[in-house]
Amino acid sequence: MDIQAAVAFTAGNPLSLETVTLELPQAGEVLIEIKATGVCHTDAYTLSGADPEGLFPAILGHEGAGIVVEVGAGVTSLKPGDHVIPLYTPECRNCEYCLSQKTNLCQAIRTTQGRGVMPNGTSRFSIDGKMIHHYMGTSTFANYTVLPEIAVAKIREDAPFEKVCLIGCGVTTGLGAVINTAKVEPGNNVVVFGLGGIGLNVIQAARMVGANMIIGVDLNPKKRVLAEKLGMTHFVNPSEIDGDLVPYLVELTKGGADYSFECIGNVNVMRQALECCHKGWGVSVVVGVAGAGQEISTRPFQLVTGRVWKGTAFGGARGRTDVPKIVDWYMDGKINIDDLVTKIMPIEQINEAFDLMHRGEVIRAVLTF
Amino acid sequence: MDIQAAVAFTAGNPLSLETVTLELPQAGEVLIEIKATGVCHTDAYTLSGADPEGLFPAILGHEGAGIVVEVGAGVTSLKPGDHVIPLYTPECRNCEYCLSQKTNLCQAIRTTQGRGVMPNGTSRFSIDGKMIHHYMGTSTFANYTVLPEIAVAKIREDAPFEKVCLIGCGVTTGLGAVINTAKVEPGNNVVVFGLGGIGLNVIQAARMVGANMIIGVDLNPKKRVLAEKLGMTHFVNPSEIDGDLVPYLVELTKGGADYSFECIGNVNVMRQALECCHKGWGVSVVVGVAGAGQEISTRPFQLVTGRVWKGTAFGGARGRTDVPKIVDWYMDGKINIDDLVTKIMPIEQINEAFDLMHRGEVIRAVLTF
Repeated sequence: MDIQAAVAFTAGNPLSLETVTLELPQAGEVLIEIKATGVCHTDAYTLSGADPEGLFPAILGHEGAGIVVEVGAGVTSLKPGDHVIPLYTPECRNCEYCLSQKTNLCQAIRTTQGRGVMPNGTSRFSIDGKMIHHYMGTSTFANYTVLPEIAVAKIREDAPFEKVCLIGCGVTTGLGAVINTAKVEPGNNVVVFGLGGIGLNVIQAARMVGANMIIGVDLNPKKRVLAEKLGMTHFVNPSEIDGDLVPYLVELTKGGADYSFECIGNVNVMRQALECCHKGWGVSVVVGVAGAGQEISTRPFQLVTGRVWKGTAFGGARGRTDVPKIVDWYMDGKINIDDLVTKIMPIEQINEAFDLMHRGEVIRAVLTF
Repeated sequence: MDIQAAVAFTAGNPLSLETVTLELPQAGEVLIEIKATGVCHTDAYTLSGADPEGLFPAILGHEGAGIVVEVGAGVTSLKPGDHVIPLYTPECRNCEYCLSQKTNLCQAIRTTQGRGVMPNGTSRFSIDGKMIHHYMGTSTFANYTVLPEIAVAKIREDAPFEKVCLIGCGVTTGLGAVINTAKVEPGNNVVVFGLGGIGLNVIQAARMVGANMIIGVDLNPKKRVLAEKLGMTHFVNPSEIDGDLVPYLVELTKGGADYSFECIGNVNVMRQALECCHKGWGVSVVVGVAGAGQEISTRPFQLVTGRVWKGTAFGGARGRTDVPKIVDWYMDGKINIDDLVTKIMPIEQINEAFDLMHRGEVIRAVLTF
């Protein structure tokens, strides 16, 4: 079938809206009509060419929501008409990783997903017979896409696509970092570095679970208002304090953060995030994605005296299990997504949406079809 | 009173056996007759002058066992005749750290301990009126020493001093890293870097809790026999394998270690220990103490894909609570200390004991009085 998609033909250039041929879903796959998709920094990172694993040509996009149109042979958990969110981290419930109950990093389709193809080794996308890669297994910058059944979360039908699409990445990553990875407890003091789409969700999750101090750290004072609305109790602008940031935060928290979150992808900030943690038990969670080859460092004394350094991907969430719950939380008013969707634009304006993100003018721009 | 002690007058020189004046215990303190003490690498590190926090002159030693001789005012949990193990990590049970139930790093007397004095700010040791520093709050290289009540673990009276003194440091550090810090579970695969006094105790604890593969890594093939006796299932000599160590260990464990332990203090090995952990859930514990100012590094991707980096001090053990239990384990035959005490020597041979340790000829030399 013919679909409309924003194609990334080469790194470093704008996306191009094209008519693309999409094959129907094969066994274990589903065809989804994408109704809305967010634009995330990870899409921009790959498009820039800086991602060493980036493949071109490709259809980017990984933060979508839509409706199942058709299912391939053997698909049992989904049917046409189901409202769904595509998952770049699948949940097969049968691999060693899923069964470990210690991680959300299902490995069932990792190899083919990394090669930009479906589990059988081929792509469903092409233009004039020339193969176009899938991206993160999702490719939501298209009005129709194909995914494996295990990479699709079924959600309630009354949830608005242009809001809950953010649960496909940013919302779940931030909430999950707090709830699944760190397991923040009531009364804890939390420090959040970077008040973008992820950091704001860390903040609202910290409020949801009853944290005490929720300290946001950002160089941009404009981030303050929305962060406070979502639950931030203290704002720290590193450029406005006297002295070094780490001792300042340790002093502010009277001993250090119980939990800290790096939501930028800056390896120097990752070190600050660890070292501002409380001696004896502070846990720092790396959420941001650093540039290829960059390294984090610290003195091992930081660990020997009780600090823990960990990370999270997709907020430690098992997508098919957890994403529907987070949609419920949004619909019940427990979390705020409306204020994170700064702008809703038609897919035709996708390159403008990237520009808005690069200029820091939006938390999220959402594209509709 | 006059006591006999091995005094470290200056860094980098042998210890000197001296008659030292010891003041009687003040309020909250106890006088202990030391019956046996191990010699540990930490004593050598401080004596070498490399420890930036080292103070001289001092009476070193922190791995002792003895008998309470006299108690100061207000001491209620100990009485003359009690068999005890001095604790360089106290357990006051009342400070923020003890009450957190998340760490063993009691801070009640940290400041004065770091300054080489008792909690009231003065030393009990002197020679001709000249103050001699306490060391790690224990100073077990003396036939009598004074400690705060909160830094003394009471143990059973039938336990041999020249064996259980090792529970004052090496045994508890290794066992506790497995049991308290990592919480290794039955069936886990464990990799232990460095088969010295700490690493061997990691190995026997891993066996005790039912680990599956227990892989020891050491450059010295002579370490193999005792490590196997204590529970090591696989020995890896990095100088004898083809290719890099990390992929070798990942292959050997079919995916990586569930838990790894660095028991050397080498920052490069600490990185290998993290990176040989299983994607998704592997936890690496830094047990060894690195040189001053040295740093650990890795790519944050290691953490984002689920590995956790943590550390341990005194094995996460709360001394007054846990040390008596470990003494029971030894007396019940659950753990082997006899084979760790390579040599028992009189205190007069203390400098020879250091030499034996430096030459790697002993796991532990124990000095008796």
